Amino acid sequence: MTAPDPVLLTPGPLTTSPQTKAAMLRDWGSWDSAFNALTASVCADIVDVVHAADTHVCIPLQGSGTFAVEAALGSFVPRRSKTLVPSNGAYCLRIARILSYLGREFVVLDHPESQAIDPQRIDAALREDADITHVAQVHCETGTGVLNPLPQIAGIVAAHGRRLVVDAMSSFGALPIDLRTMPVDALIAASGKCLEGVPGMGFVVARRTVVESAAGCAHSLALDLHDQWTYLQKTGQWRFTPPTHVVAALRAAIDQFTAEGGQPARLARYTEHCSVLVDGMRSLGFETFIGDDVQAPIIVTFHAPPDPAYDFAEFYRRMRARGFVIYPGKLTTVETFRVGCIGALRSADIRRAVDAIAATVREMGIEVMAPTSLSNLAG
Amino acid sequence: MTAPDPVLLTPGPLTTSPQTKAAMLRDWGSWDSAFNALTASVCADIVDVVHAADTHVCIPLQGSGTFAVEAALGSFVPRRSKTLVPSNGAYCLRIARILSYLGREFVVLDHPESQAIDPQRIDAALREDADITHVAQVHCETGTGVLNPLPQIAGIVAAHGRRLVVDAMSSFGALPIDLRTMPVDALIAASGKCLEGVPGMGFVVARRTVVESAAGCAHSLALDLHDQWTYLQKTGQWRFTPPTHVVAALRAAIDQFTAEGGQPARLARYTEHCSVLVDGMRSLGFETFIGDDVQAPIIVTFHAPPDPAYDFAEFYRRMRARGFVIYPGKLTTVETFRVGCIGALRSADIRRAVDAIAATVREMGIEVMAPTSLSNLAG
Repeated sequence: MTAPDPVLLTPGPLTTSPQTKAAMLRDWGSWDSAFNALTASVCADIVDVVHAADTHVCIPLQGSGTFAVEAALGSFVPRRSKTLVPSNGAYCLRIARILSYLGREFVVLDHPESQAIDPQRIDAALREDADITHVAQVHCETGTGVLNPLPQIAGIVAAHGRRLVVDAMSSFGALPIDLRTMPVDALIAASGKCLEGVPGMGFVVARRTVVESAAGCAHSLALDLHDQWTYLQKTGQWRFTPPTHVVAALRAAIDQFTAEGGQPARLARYTEHCSVLVDGMRSLGFETFIGDDVQAPIIVTFHAPPDPAYDFAEFYRRMRARGFVIYPGKLTTVETFRVGCIGALRSADIRRAVDAIAATVREMGIEVMAPTSLSNLAG
Repeated sequence: MTAPDPVLLTPGPLTTSPQTKAAMLRDWGSWDSAFNALTASVCADIVDVVHAADTHVCIPLQGSGTFAVEAALGSFVPRRSKTLVPSNGAYCLRIARILSYLGREFVVLDHPESQAIDPQRIDAALREDADITHVAQVHCETGTGVLNPLPQIAGIVAAHGRRLVVDAMSSFGALPIDLRTMPVDALIAASGKCLEGVPGMGFVVARRTVVESAAGCAHSLALDLHDQWTYLQKTGQWRFTPPTHVVAALRAAIDQFTAEGGQPARLARYTEHCSVLVDGMRSLGFETFIGDDVQAPIIVTFHAPPDPAYDFAEFYRRMRARGFVIYPGKLTTVETFRVGCIGALRSADIRRAVDAIAATVREMGIEVMAPTSLSNLAG
């Protein structure tokens, strides 16, 4: 390739570092002790990110993050159960869709997409329905960028004696999660998100006692985390061919994560990216879809300009030509687009992205602000 | 790493070429048209390998080959069905295990592990049991290296009006498979086998009419191939985050496959590897577990030396130190080990491997042949 790679401003796959990619320039035997050690070290480090070494284990799984979410639900939510799915977006609804495939009872607790999940509504739902055994919660809803109040939710679920499964796909490694103080049965994420590896591997940080009692629960051989864990314990190996190069890249990515200063340092960097992005976009007249109080520094949803000259496909294409890959919106009722803050980037990259957006709207002759907003500003 | 990478003589992950690994040195946006084109070109080339462009489509899937096998069974074998599983090894039994997880009726037609599947026994089983709707057959049983007679099996299944699903994991790309003359509903393989990509992606070459009528069949969202295909058709994208680097490596690997001369050239190279290996090992006194008439040139199972001085773990470790990764046996009744013939290797690599085995048995003081075999030779 002669042109430099575009900067990926998406929720994953991300722009990864040269060291992370270079770790894939080697073939590993999946039966080899060197690879077993690689797997074990990656899993140990993942458990440490959420301070769970005393209580939880990490079970790696081939495939994307959604494979790991389905595996956790299938393996740890029993066939006779009822799961509450507090929902404020597409990834919450994906959990409901998975439970529907699995034939496991669930009820969706609907929230507006622009707002965080309200822990008091979960409290009320659990008080009113004694049949609910589990709550399945997305931490950062990638569909919008809303951060849900996980510590409060975990406290309420525990107070009611129910079990909590958390989709931490786009928060793991960036936002603080401490399983010593937050009762969670299973926490799910993947290689290609805030740990900044390449995509191809999910993982579940699961309570050891829950894993041990999960025999026979899963609906699927490939997605059976009890079986995966048991085999891994016995042999040090994955049950089926692991994505060896992806695991090696994740090892390298975690080394860089640690060298950077772990989760607090990553959060600080992403927070700076997010603030440079939001400030820059607002100065161009763009409006965020959600309030700053619920915005996670992971991905930001912007309202599409109300100008008929705006067309996402064309906007995307021109941004791509300028070296930036942005992301479409995931809302059905409002036209939006998304810009990610995560990956092996510096705030200078984000500044350049904002400049590219400014140049693109100019080039396309787009009026970013609605006339009413303009008159409000003038007033 | 200062030491050169070991040569992987396993059924995968394989030794891949430098070009294949170098293709992973780039990050791809999964929403980007360049990546959509990559996926489409890989899928088109895969369908062409088995001459199926007129009738079949390729559905890629995240995860290992077993994920794709389970996805094909879950998506294309209806809930009300009965599957015949002719079995001569571990991977045939894995199909039965998957069907058991899925709660789909099946019957195993057991064969000795050292022999190929007998098409006449399938014929008899289908004649005797009108309830059987499907046959699920492993092409090359990787557990032993036995090649099953797929064209004959396909002919018999079709003559009885039943449907055939084929696990072609370790044969796809190396052994001739022509879906124009062989009626198959779904043929499953993966990136990290004879196409010589890296592991992390499976694929199913499925009859278009079967895919189109498979809505609502799957037991799993992640493994629903009808849903994966429908979304891919509509958007050009995978439903969930694809293993972008693995797909890019497979693109590079298929380019090299084509440049080498496609399946016939790959078969010729592997056949040479197999013959150098078997001849060399026999000259050292090793015996193959199966007859040459049923040996696929993919992986060879050797009887362990009967000498008590032999210990696989130690043998493996010393071979590893000499730069070769071999593979354990997968038989429960006989002690064996396996040596793969596939990957980006030359016959010189196989010759060096045989030399390393000779040196290792010498070093360990192992008598390779049983005393009876020796006296037979003497007689």
